[in-house]
Amino acid sequence: MSHMGSTDVTGLAEALAPGMVVTDPDILGAYRFDRANDPDAGTPLALVRPTTTEDVQTTVRWCAANGVPIITRGAGTSLSGGSTAVDGAVTLSTEKMRNLTIDTATRTAVAQPGLLNAEVKAAAAENGLWYPPDPSSFEICSIGGNVATNAGGLCCVKYGVTTDYVLGLQVVLADGRAVRLGGKQLKDSAGLPLTKLFVGSEGLLGIVTEVTLRLLPPQAPACTVVGSFSSVRAASEAVLAVTAQIRPAMLEFMDSVSINAVEDMLKMGLDRNAGALLVAQSDAPGPAGEAEVAIIEQAFARCGAGEVFATADPVESEAFTQARRAAIPAVERLGALLLEDVGVPLPALPDLIDGVEAIAAANRVLISVIAHAGDGNTHPLIVHDPSDADETARANAAFGQIMDLAISLGGTITGEHGVGRLKKGWLRDQVGDDVMDLTKLIKSALDPAGLLNPGVLL
Amino acid sequence: MSHMGSTDVTGLAEALAPGMVVTDPDILGAYRFDRANDPDAGTPLALVRPTTTEDVQTTVRWCAANGVPIITRGAGTSLSGGSTAVDGAVTLSTEKMRNLTIDTATRTAVAQPGLLNAEVKAAAAENGLWYPPDPSSFEICSIGGNVATNAGGLCCVKYGVTTDYVLGLQVVLADGRAVRLGGKQLKDSAGLPLTKLFVGSEGLLGIVTEVTLRLLPPQAPACTVVGSFSSVRAASEAVLAVTAQIRPAMLEFMDSVSINAVEDMLKMGLDRNAGALLVAQSDAPGPAGEAEVAIIEQAFARCGAGEVFATADPVESEAFTQARRAAIPAVERLGALLLEDVGVPLPALPDLIDGVEAIAAANRVLISVIAHAGDGNTHPLIVHDPSDADETARANAAFGQIMDLAISLGGTITGEHGVGRLKKGWLRDQVGDDVMDLTKLIKSALDPAGLLNPGVLL
Ligand SMILES: Cc1cc2nc3c(=O)[nH]c(=O)nc-3n(C[C@H](O)[C@H](O)[C@H](O)COP(=O)(O)OP(=O)(O)OC[C@H]3O[C@@H](n4cnc5c(N)ncnc54)[C@H](O)[C@@H]3O)c2cc1C
Ligand SMILES: Cc1cc2nc3c(=O)[nH]c(=O)nc-3n(C[C@H](O)[C@H](O)[C@H](O)COP(=O)(O)OP(=O)(O)OC[C@H]3O[C@@H](n4cnc5c(N)ncnc54)[C@H](O)[C@@H]3O)c2cc1C
Repeated sequence: MSHMGSTDVTGLAEALAPGMVVTDPDILGAYRFDRANDPDAGTPLALVRPTTTEDVQTTVRWCAANGVPIITRGAGTSLSGGSTAVDGAVTLSTEKMRNLTIDTATRTAVAQPGLLNAEVKAAAAENGLWYPPDPSSFEICSIGGNVATNAGGLCCVKYGVTTDYVLGLQVVLADGRAVRLGGKQLKDSAGLPLTKLFVGSEGLLGIVTEVTLRLLPPQAPACTVVGSFSSVRAASEAVLAVTAQIRPAMLEFMDSVSINAVEDMLKMGLDRNAGALLVAQSDAPGPAGEAEVAIIEQAFARCGAGEVFATADPVESEAFTQARRAAIPAVERLGALLLEDVGVPLPALPDLIDGVEAIAAANRVLISVIAHAGDGNTHPLIVHDPSDADETARANAAFGQIMDLAISLGGTITGEHGVGRLKKGWLRDQVGDDVMDLTKLIKSALDPAGLLNPGVLL
Repeated sequence: MSHMGSTDVTGLAEALAPGMVVTDPDILGAYRFDRANDPDAGTPLALVRPTTTEDVQTTVRWCAANGVPIITRGAGTSLSGGSTAVDGAVTLSTEKMRNLTIDTATRTAVAQPGLLNAEVKAAAAENGLWYPPDPSSFEICSIGGNVATNAGGLCCVKYGVTTDYVLGLQVVLADGRAVRLGGKQLKDSAGLPLTKLFVGSEGLLGIVTEVTLRLLPPQAPACTVVGSFSSVRAASEAVLAVTAQIRPAMLEFMDSVSINAVEDMLKMGLDRNAGALLVAQSDAPGPAGEAEVAIIEQAFARCGAGEVFATADPVESEAFTQARRAAIPAVERLGALLLEDVGVPLPALPDLIDGVEAIAAANRVLISVIAHAGDGNTHPLIVHDPSDADETARANAAFGQIMDLAISLGGTITGEHGVGRLKKGWLRDQVGDDVMDLTKLIKSALDPAGLLNPGVLL
């Protein structure tokens, strides 16, 4: 029972295909961090890159027998430290599990977890279908990671999050058994809603080895409305003015720091003087779409937008969407980021955004706010220099205070990135002792030895 | 530790408000059956009608201390025996838990569980909002029962089922603790997805005492298309022809037995000679709606519909929807029903419907098929005379064979009504031993004494 890196993995290597188990320190080094860049990241005991469910079962059984924990890793884009390596633990990477079938008759995709979200989207599109969930990281994150974190994105304000598209799963449990949950049927009430329990469980209860996804007919062409505002307050009030009337297909927020960072990176002509930018879309067809666009334009104008620009041109639309998607990497060029993901009930959005400004001032740190605003889900990006201990301490203080603020406004410490390792200190404050107990009861029932993703969430 | 009806409930009665605990046999008699009319229904030890979460906690704590099981009952419209009374168990009815607040700013409803679905819909509508889930029983079933069964309905082919609208819950656990899960925030990834675990858990894991529901802007006016077909096969092929192209807002199926039964009851001029009827709706606005209606009309015609009738008139539309909703009560007038709820991946729908016909013939019983066809979810209604032992035996045989058929077609034994008591003999065949184990692990973790809804599902 050693987690100390001393375990000999020869037995595992022999049980799997040649090359599937990697212990080369250079390669292992590339699997230490995820996008949370936790300085305390460990080094994997070994890297396992299975291709089949059976390989995953073999790995889990060997690890269970040898008391070796497993960190499941998709594409490693976690912003909450969910796929950070742990000393003495195997990192199981799904990157080679890449099979995909699109079934147009049932309008479903059956995907292995290692495919990128963008690859699933593209294959669906080739078959005249649409897989909606679109995290900003869609070109670099895996579908398995999306399922494990119940990823959101830009269109989820109208089209929902990952769980709304998961019809079935194959999951390897902590004892190595593989179960199938749900399937291609659109409705299924047989038994406890276990599919739903696994989506968003951050790899604590099992390893997802196959996903059956619901696909939709293609999205209608969208019209994009962009508004610049002098203040973040004005823009956040415009969000409420829109959502009070319609359900836009996108409603994204960027503050001046992120606008300028994106402009530095993409040089696309964004208004550098704007205090905040909103990017909204309507995909309602015909006159209904025109009506929605008019509602958005009027709401923006009424809340004091300096400039309002509407376009039905797909290239222009995509440029604005891409600007918003580029915000995290762009702001990352200003310094290391502590990345927040707090959400509140919509009417509290202006107070949240004001409060974050106050926290930035009080802690003398730069905080850029971007948001899936139509969902009340914001990403305050706390910029800091990790080599400056004092600034790092202030950034960490701000990180906690923002979560406290969200909780005090009746909201959540994480709208879509998950708790991972970074936020577990605040989970109890949000959900309370009894829900923590419930969480532990379920974790212990399904993974009594605590083999899967130790240190995540609990 | 007696479940034998001998327990003295005086202590419980004293702990609650006067009149909240009922032991009058005449009243208890009215709480024995649900709509599954299980002849083996027991009689409640006592009926408890709490008004607050604290009352529910008091009841659960007393029951836990005295080893008395609890059957939670909403409006008792379960078709799978979920709220059937058990000898020696308390029946906890939520019928007096009727508080409701609509919050237009967050576009949410906070409801106690005893409200009827129709009451929630009406209150939302008064505030210019829409609560979509619409089981055919919406005027007589409770919102708590809808949550416990993850109820579906007619519009869920486009708008999803109950779980898609549940943002938050308050739940009393088997040890009497009350937990709050989720809330008014639209996105929340903090911790395991426990809200989702409780929706559809058939009252096995806790008693829902408050629900926070997502509301939408009002539905756009719908256009209804009705097609009569000479055979069930032709109609079921028309279903596929529609769903291959669009996502209708409704796509319902009735066979000739149900058409005639409804016509006998409502006398609204349905085509008594039709082999099957499809009722479809599009609520896409403007030209997009016209295009969808054209697609539906063409698909119906191509699959051999004798008559296709389209209307944008809300009164006419509602009449057809109501005809479909009336199908179960109408067919019930032909005899006692064994009510199926099997679902299959859409392309298997014609085979399922053909197979049910064959099962009816082989067992010499009348089976009327109605269906939420656009979801592949069918309700074969097996008509029989319970006083005829031989016919009852044949009906029971058909009941099992239909579930076997659905499983063999890759489908489910229940699309929306839940497993309850009636279908638990088939659950293992569908999900397998490992998923049954997983189910038991979770049940034992949360309700080790098996206090809540014993006999349901497990
Ligand atoms: C620039 C940028 C923008 C982003 N924008 C968004 C956004 O808009 N919305 C959003 O939701 N997220 C966003 N993210 C966060 C991240 O991309 C998502 O959380 C994504 O779902 C993670 O996928 P991954 O494959 O990288 O998972 P990883 O980082 O590898 O893992 C994430 C978690 O899931 C677990 N996991 C992964 N695969 C499996 C599996 N097969 N079985 C069980 N557990 C598994 C891991 O153990 C870990 O706990 C963004 C990230 C970046 C870097
Ligand atoms: C004519 C007719 C048509 C129907 N059509 C549909 C349809 O289209 N779609 C559909 O999904 N269903 C349909 N049903 C079935 C039924 O109406 C639904 O299952 C409904 O959700 C049950 O609600 P109820 O309040 O009557 O629950 P009950 O019958 O009282 O209970 C159902 C189950 O939920 C549990 N439960 C109830 N309340 C709670 C609570 N507060 N906390 C925990 N557990 C609880 C009970 O213990 C039981 O297991 C129909 C029924 C009839 C009679």
